[in-house]
Amino acid sequence: MSTSTIGVPLTRVVVMGGTHGNEMSGVCLVKKWIKDSSELCRETFKAEPFLANPRAVERCVRFIDQDLNRSFSMEKLSASECENDPYEIKRAREIYQRYGLNLSSADFIFDLHNTTSNMGTTLLYCKLDDYLALHMARYLQINCDDASLPCRIFFIDIPEKDNVYLQNIAKHSLTLELGPQPQGVTRADILIRMKNLVNCGLDFIDVFNQGKEFPSFETEIYRVASKMHYPRGADGEIQAFIHPKLQDNDYLPLNPGDPMFKTIQGEDIFYEGEKTIYPAFINEAAYYGNNVAFVVTEKVHFTVPTLRLKH
Amino acid sequence: MSTSTIGVPLTRVVVMGGTHGNEMSGVCLVKKWIKDSSELCRETFKAEPFLANPRAVERCVRFIDQDLNRSFSMEKLSASECENDPYEIKRAREIYQRYGLNLSSADFIFDLHNTTSNMGTTLLYCKLDDYLALHMARYLQINCDDASLPCRIFFIDIPEKDNVYLQNIAKHSLTLELGPQPQGVTRADILIRMKNLVNCGLDFIDVFNQGKEFPSFETEIYRVASKMHYPRGADGEIQAFIHPKLQDNDYLPLNPGDPMFKTIQGEDIFYEGEKTIYPAFINEAAYYGNNVAFVVTEKVHFTVPTLRLKH
Repeated sequence: MSTSTIGVPLTRVVVMGGTHGNEMSGVCLVKKWIKDSSELCRETFKAEPFLANPRAVERCVRFIDQDLNRSFSMEKLSASECENDPYEIKRAREIYQRYGLNLSSADFIFDLHNTTSNMGTTLLYCKLDDYLALHMARYLQINCDDASLPCRIFFIDIPEKDNVYLQNIAKHSLTLELGPQPQGVTRADILIRMKNLVNCGLDFIDVFNQGKEFPSFETEIYRVASKMHYPRGADGEIQAFIHPKLQDNDYLPLNPGDPMFKTIQGEDIFYEGEKTIYPAFINEAAYYGNNVAFVVTEKVHFTVPTLRLKH
Repeated sequence: MSTSTIGVPLTRVVVMGGTHGNEMSGVCLVKKWIKDSSELCRETFKAEPFLANPRAVERCVRFIDQDLNRSFSMEKLSASECENDPYEIKRAREIYQRYGLNLSSADFIFDLHNTTSNMGTTLLYCKLDDYLALHMARYLQINCDDASLPCRIFFIDIPEKDNVYLQNIAKHSLTLELGPQPQGVTRADILIRMKNLVNCGLDFIDVFNQGKEFPSFETEIYRVASKMHYPRGADGEIQAFIHPKLQDNDYLPLNPGDPMFKTIQGEDIFYEGEKTIYPAFINEAAYYGNNVAFVVTEKVHFTVPTLRLKH
């Protein structure tokens, strides 16, 4: 297996919170770090805390006009500015100017999120060949204080040109998605878990920058396959909700014939697919708007090459 | 012990959902019953489903301008109308006209709510002498399908003239507060539990209307004593959150010296009161705005007199 190398140390590291203004772990941590960022210092760099959507944070809502984390399309970022652009489009341009343009782009972005789903610690990435993100994920799985909690790798396989996520503007990135936590609520256990994960990720970058070689490994990842929608009636209303036997079972196998939805009348609706799937983001509050009951993933194995700085 | 009597059967019964537009159990059930209310029919009456805050429901938010469930003050309801009144004040007047004026006022209102707190089934009432509500609560505790789940009586002791809750406009009322459920999420188990509770409550009214006498009983209620606030810094930011050992322990005793908050730095803050309290609405999302970390209740015993229709 070949070795993957990176030319220069990662010195421009950003910790983003409040990309969604009501996902409170990142909001609280980044606000704290903006006041005192000493915790983000390492020998080889100092990470920068950044509040991505301050107006949404102020109102404790996911977004003002549209989802900021779906606003980073190259088409929109490069379009000419317009007074009537949605707030998040304007904000995405500002963030892109600051952290995304090629010469000055961030080496690494942590994007801190919460979900109402029972997803434990989810490490989400979008670029198949971002081996640095995968080595960091492995490092978090092994070294972080909360290793006893499930810590899974979630892969959204999108061509870079179609990627509209904030994390896409950096050279390398990882989205931390912690749950379950209701929108607008801060749970201390999840807050501390996220703090530990970020610190552990910064340690990884520091060790990498200092020349440590990370050996090849094989890993299990949950790759997005499709989305499962709520059944809706002719009037547009949802007819059936996540079945109690599926609720909170993120990442566990859903087999053909298993109960999937329950109607308000109490009837069961079963999963009728042909193969086992691994649901994630089950009953996520923010996904009702797009009628997504859960994200369908398949479990795949993937070999990550050895990683080191180019000598 | 004396007997409490009620002069006439309860025939005007209302089931309110969506008083808070993002508390989904009541929203879903009431929308369903508006389309087909046959489930709300009993021998002696037919209950009426009513969506209290349709604009908030449409946007899936708690309220548009201000909390509808704090908008029923007699002062505001009787003030002259004004174009610039907040939406919820206008809506409260409409609801009051329809269900609250003396001659036509509702005999009973169920007000359906959810909480992000781990409060199981909470039966909330505000009028100490609403013995009918207390007999219904007892009936729900004994008869409803979900009797195995904790089902507690929660009493807010406010003089009627200061009461700003929707439930206050009816002759008798009970607020059903089910959790934990994130805002904007429908959990099937909680939806079905609420449906069963409402049906069981309607059964109680029907049996009462048919002349059944309900004997006196002694009950345990959680009476609101005060509110516990989050510690905030000079900059207004919350300094410490609900301690993991208190989180989800609604209605369990919090003793002097028990951990209560945890700071972002990881330090514990202890409860320093002199007597045991029973926290409820622990880490409720909607209460951050008023800086309420939890509601302090004390457990008291109360004897409810025999209840029957006046012959």
